Amino acid sequence: MAPSASSQPRGVYAAVLTPLTPSFEPDTALFVKHCRWLLDNGCDGLAPLGTTGEANSLSVEQRIRLVEAAAGSGIPMAKFIAGAGSCALADAVTVTRAAVAAGAAGALLLPPFYYKNPSEDGLFAFFSEVIQRVGDARLRVYLYHFPQLSAVPITSGLIARLMKAYPDGTIAGLKDSSGDWSNSARLLKEFPGFGVFSGSEQLLLDNLRAGGVGCISASTNVTAPLARPVYEAWREAKAEGLQKALTEVRLILQSYPMQATLKQVCAALGGDKTWLNILPPNRPLSRAQADELMAKLSALPQMAAVLGKAATKAA
Amino acid sequence: MAPSASSQPRGVYAAVLTPLTPSFEPDTALFVKHCRWLLDNGCDGLAPLGTTGEANSLSVEQRIRLVEAAAGSGIPMAKFIAGAGSCALADAVTVTRAAVAAGAAGALLLPPFYYKNPSEDGLFAFFSEVIQRVGDARLRVYLYHFPQLSAVPITSGLIARLMKAYPDGTIAGLKDSSGDWSNSARLLKEFPGFGVFSGSEQLLLDNLRAGGVGCISASTNVTAPLARPVYEAWREAKAEGLQKALTEVRLILQSYPMQATLKQVCAALGGDKTWLNILPPNRPLSRAQADELMAKLSALPQMAAVLGKAATKAA
Repeated sequence: MAPSASSQPRGVYAAVLTPLTPSFEPDTALFVKHCRWLLDNGCDGLAPLGTTGEANSLSVEQRIRLVEAAAGSGIPMAKFIAGAGSCALADAVTVTRAAVAAGAAGALLLPPFYYKNPSEDGLFAFFSEVIQRVGDARLRVYLYHFPQLSAVPITSGLIARLMKAYPDGTIAGLKDSSGDWSNSARLLKEFPGFGVFSGSEQLLLDNLRAGGVGCISASTNVTAPLARPVYEAWREAKAEGLQKALTEVRLILQSYPMQATLKQVCAALGGDKTWLNILPPNRPLSRAQADELMAKLSALPQMAAVLGKAATKAA
Repeated sequence: MAPSASSQPRGVYAAVLTPLTPSFEPDTALFVKHCRWLLDNGCDGLAPLGTTGEANSLSVEQRIRLVEAAAGSGIPMAKFIAGAGSCALADAVTVTRAAVAAGAAGALLLPPFYYKNPSEDGLFAFFSEVIQRVGDARLRVYLYHFPQLSAVPITSGLIARLMKAYPDGTIAGLKDSSGDWSNSARLLKEFPGFGVFSGSEQLLLDNLRAGGVGCISASTNVTAPLARPVYEAWREAKAEGLQKALTEVRLILQSYPMQATLKQVCAALGGDKTWLNILPPNRPLSRAQADELMAKLSALPQMAAVLGKAATKAA
């Protein structure tokens, strides 16, 4: 039942932004357009409906609408890892089921994040219940480790227990958004072959060298054209320099509120102000922040590659 | 538009537990039975679908099913403050609208709790958007301050801003589940007449004396018969002793995981094992925990009053 290694998601993934109408409905047409642009400009795959995609600010119906819009528009779902987590068991099941039905390569699952300090037993019960209720051999779960936002870490003990209960490849990998490289490194040693994605392209090269499969990053919504060469050259000496140029951009982006920043850059590069709409509690950047951000980015020579690719987007 | 002071929710409220079937669907019949028991045995009102009611573990549809079951069964909705919070704007609007349509006296709203350190501006935008989208003059919002679980506090600045934007009584009060009495005391001074409920009956007497309106507590699912006399006698000298007896029970209950503990006691007192079903990541108490808990409670003389009332429940 497990897919062959070559078909497993690998490489540069973007945690795809969710464009919104002024009344905060998903703009599915702009979403699909952005998905296509990402795949054409450096991304191996797409991971919408995560933190960057404001998924927890959207209803189940709105999330599924985005998954189905992608599938219905011919976005290759073998390159699509859909965020499907929820505090509510029934909701996690509904979104995961829809993702599998649409042919998604994986479902990225947050732990239930309202109750703090849940037991390992309680988290195991949650994920296990989702897997059993979805009840589809095609399901590939990517666990979402983002303790800064979920406040509920994905521990080694939990992963081991889930892998033992579901030894058929269902527990396919993990997105490590902790920013703590030692955590990814430890997981890769502890679980050889586990599909560990770094949550930032800053760790792309380190992760690939340690046996990880790539990155699922917020900022690759913008930096995909710079992340691509790192992934292609990761076994070569020149990878270091490419990673350095990529990291330089990432560090600027992450010094501002992430979702608003990326939407700001997409609006600037693609020339579509729809991108500025963002669901509360997130807020758009101020004009001063936006101007400062764009000035900093424009000053970097490697951004010329991004701006060149962006021209294809605005067209 | 504002209700008269006498019709505002006041007194002993229970953060009503959600009984669940073995497949984790709300058991609406048992829910309604429990609501009735609470109103007959010491509660002035009901606040289901909060933290104790596992609302964030339920889908929007499951939550609304419980609200409508209560309304449809003749539970007096003027005594009903429905939990309606969600990280997702659309979901908070949907549940709040359903609560207002069912005649609920109030909607208890968590802040969106996924993104951490949101700006006051972002939180204001969220609550304001909910109020405007519901667009019903009957709406009475109770803000839900529970920083230990939401990780997003309700600040004085936010309350002041909401009250200024909605000066018609829409911002009716707050449930202070911080356990920090100084926070409630400060809010009562800062916002005279604001409907501050303590999140624990341990602070019931203090809160009433300082101008608060009562408590909305998890443990009053069990201790309502002991909380009632405190509320009735709060201006009298004997209130101190009554509060002490009440607090003694509360302290035992809160030394175990709260939701599981209260479901355990309800199962024991009401003789219905359905109460033991609990949604992950929460887990039932172990047999050893349950035995120890029940032994501690039974050793308290004031629990005789609770057990006597419980006999009416099992009947």
